[in-house]
Amino acid sequence: MFSLSKKVIDSKSPFSRLFSKVAVVLSGCGVYDGSEIQEAVSTLIHLSKNGAEYQCFAPNKEQMHVIDHLKTEPTKESRNVLTESARIVRGDIKPLNDINIKEMDAIIFPGGFGAAKNLSDFATKGKDFVVDTEVEKILKEFHKQKKPIGLICIAPVLGAKVFKDCIVTIGDDPGVKDVIQSVGARHKDLDPEEICVDDKNLIISTPAYMKAQKINVVFDGIGKLVKKVLEFTEKK
Amino acid sequence: MFSLSKKVIDSKSPFSRLFSKVAVVLSGCGVYDGSEIQEAVSTLIHLSKNGAEYQCFAPNKEQMHVIDHLKTEPTKESRNVLTESARIVRGDIKPLNDINIKEMDAIIFPGGFGAAKNLSDFATKGKDFVVDTEVEKILKEFHKQKKPIGLICIAPVLGAKVFKDCIVTIGDDPGVKDVIQSVGARHKDLDPEEICVDDKNLIISTPAYMKAQKINVVFDGIGKLVKKVLEFTEKK
Repeated sequence: MFSLSKKVIDSKSPFSRLFSKVAVVLSGCGVYDGSEIQEAVSTLIHLSKNGAEYQCFAPNKEQMHVIDHLKTEPTKESRNVLTESARIVRGDIKPLNDINIKEMDAIIFPGGFGAAKNLSDFATKGKDFVVDTEVEKILKEFHKQKKPIGLICIAPVLGAKVFKDCIVTIGDDPGVKDVIQSVGARHKDLDPEEICVDDKNLIISTPAYMKAQKINVVFDGIGKLVKKVLEFTEKK
Repeated sequence: MFSLSKKVIDSKSPFSRLFSKVAVVLSGCGVYDGSEIQEAVSTLIHLSKNGAEYQCFAPNKEQMHVIDHLKTEPTKESRNVLTESARIVRGDIKPLNDINIKEMDAIIFPGGFGAAKNLSDFATKGKDFVVDTEVEKILKEFHKQKKPIGLICIAPVLGAKVFKDCIVTIGDDPGVKDVIQSVGARHKDLDPEEICVDDKNLIISTPAYMKAQKINVVFDGIGKLVKKVLEFTEKK
């Protein structure tokens, strides 16, 4: 059960953890204005099934807006990204700027419009988008420390923008592929049960609901991504 | 892949469906005032993995209240059960009173305080609680038509109250067990990876987060419940 994430105890430190610990960054609660809930939960299930520990984080800021998920229309409400993300994980979440990267072995970003509205402004700016300053800083630090980065659904645009010289997949959406290529990254067309592995940058991506129609396909694709992320944490 | 849910085509009807179709009743979005999101998503993943079709429903009414899931405190907001439930399923949900029971082979209720606040008033009334009129009517109709009923986490209190002469599990919480017994039903102490099967009433229950600590245990327990629900739909 723990085969994929059981880390060899570092003989130099009696305090080394046995299991990989993975940061999961949420961006709200619901596909149209936050995290894609099914992708976020699938990520946590696979981490847990593979014996990894996880801690969720989200930026403590207002959502870009609130979408009524029944009518798919904006409402007049305002909601906080961290407070809404807490719904997915029974309140067990921390503000993103409290992350201690030294304690983490890897980081995963589920998708949903939250990644394009609250973690960046991709949804409104397209190819001229910028990544949230805190998110960019954290991505660069994981990369610098050679800790793997998992990017699901639309979240690979964050990696493309921050690292440029990398390869990711969002499935095969022509518009999003163009943006990924226009910022200097490469794109690999893949199906939702597949993963794109950038060995050099330790970036793993999967299309999930950018291409999938069914929840079991999303679940299986994310399962492969999680296993590869955990394999990379073992190699360190 | 489809072995559990592939139904024998009824020779009397050329229109019979090949696969079981299951109604999943949500009660909001977030454990403290709605559906337990991880339980709801686990249910959908297992239905999909077993080749079943599903349709989600939720009552079109105001939530009892809104809980800030970070502070675990009530807020001054008001939110609608159906609108919030829609977040879990990308908007693909119908009002509970639009359910056509003839089209459904089974019904499953995930847990979360929503089942005790929006589908009944168990959270505030305890042993004197009543089940929402619409929910009660629908449960009785599935039961009458010998279509299986899956009840997760706290949701078994709904079955206990409506059917009385039945056996369910919510794990081993003493207070909730007392209520289940006080309304005339029986309770079976079980661990969260186990299921309670009431063969006579076709009611299947599992403790999930009423007893589980980890998401993978919740996922596995719900997996067993879903398989048993689908097996019962085959027997018809």
